[in-house]
Amino acid sequence: MSAGHRFSDAERGGVYRAIFERRDVRSQFLPDPIPADVLERLLRAAHHAPSVGFMQPWDFIVVEDPAVKHEVKALHAQANAQAAHNYRDERAELYRQLKLEGIVESPINLCITCDRGRGGEHVLGRNTMLDADLFSACLAVQNLWLAARAEGIGVGWVSILEPRELARVLGLPEGVEPLAYLCLGYVSQFLERPELQTRGWRSRLPLQDLVHANVWGGEVQDPALRSALLAGEPDRDPTRGG
Amino acid sequence: MSAGHRFSDAERGGVYRAIFERRDVRSQFLPDPIPADVLERLLRAAHHAPSVGFMQPWDFIVVEDPAVKHEVKALHAQANAQAAHNYRDERAELYRQLKLEGIVESPINLCITCDRGRGGEHVLGRNTMLDADLFSACLAVQNLWLAARAEGIGVGWVSILEPRELARVLGLPEGVEPLAYLCLGYVSQFLERPELQTRGWRSRLPLQDLVHANVWGGEVQDPALRSALLAGEPDRDPTRGG
Repeated sequence: MSAGHRFSDAERGGVYRAIFERRDVRSQFLPDPIPADVLERLLRAAHHAPSVGFMQPWDFIVVEDPAVKHEVKALHAQANAQAAHNYRDERAELYRQLKLEGIVESPINLCITCDRGRGGEHVLGRNTMLDADLFSACLAVQNLWLAARAEGIGVGWVSILEPRELARVLGLPEGVEPLAYLCLGYVSQFLERPELQTRGWRSRLPLQDLVHANVWGGEVQDPALRSALLAGEPDRDPTRGG
Repeated sequence: MSAGHRFSDAERGGVYRAIFERRDVRSQFLPDPIPADVLERLLRAAHHAPSVGFMQPWDFIVVEDPAVKHEVKALHAQANAQAAHNYRDERAELYRQLKLEGIVESPINLCITCDRGRGGEHVLGRNTMLDADLFSACLAVQNLWLAARAEGIGVGWVSILEPRELARVLGLPEGVEPLAYLCLGYVSQFLERPELQTRGWRSRLPLQDLVHANVWGGEVQDPALRSALLAGEPDRDPTRGG
């Protein structure tokens, strides 16, 4: 590998640290404002995501107005009450106890949208995978999420919202979809593990069960890769002697 | 912000460096093999993406078999020939000159799939945003892409493939979709700018045009944010005195 583009150990460690210590935050938001230069860095990080045909289909709606937040919060309450009916008994009990958003407590809400018509009718690379523009906007979300972790800022993705209702509240034009509604703020702490894991909603799947060789179900033959997959500990940064 | 979860400047700089220096690689792949421990780190980085309801809908098919690669390459050739018909004149000429994949030259191809049935019928958080599982798998793609950059490994997403044909070649079961087909390998260089930008296919959009306050079209009022958005230079790491 050429030395010119090599990362230092600290830089590389920072990337893995952001990946492994990133959390979907709902409950630990502090009211401290996010300075303009920090917010700008997060938005620029999102804007530098890859996009199909360099389409850059995203827009960023920065929501600070309490009136808008309260409207979105009401949409969430409605969709969440509906969702609670999907569960029974202990599962329903646990679902109701989970706090699934921090819309009002977080100082900034951010809606990342996808303009499906940007770039014209024929976007390079979107002829067979027709949702590649939505996928590009997701990559922008993850850039922002990791940059936020590096800045000490927590992010929570609120997916329990009726998209058409959200589009109405935010005044989105026809053809622009609300892809992600995010809550951003400094936090008292980043939890050690994902909350749904700690609370017993679902477990982390063992990575080795998810890796296939060449085709679906193909067993990994390389003994070094097999043992690396088995040895890795979930929730640990593998660059730190895990 | 509590000191416990704070990143050092080098760690934070590493995250932004990965974000701004990441490229969609098609032409600079070296044949050098990716060591098993490095590949394991990349897969684990992907596996630690956020997912709706902690669903972890992804699987990872590591393709090294030249026969499988050649089948996928043939699928791409077919879909790409079809796509070329969408353009006319200079645009068609430019399209045909672009190299859009490195399937055979890259030592490893990786298909990240989405198992839409994982986690049962009612996945927490997927009741209104029905494609949130696909979006989660995208976040795994971006984790891997950034970790790869930190390891000096280039990644290219090949989206010009007919998904049903790709699923057939990879033997995917019903209900599992091929989300991303990626080419991975060490590279001779990471280009300074996205290739589609340099080649004049599309320009980088100015970030300030993409930021709205509170609702679509809402003008940013905060003078500090306005000037930060204007001052930021595209393609520069804003933490490095840009």
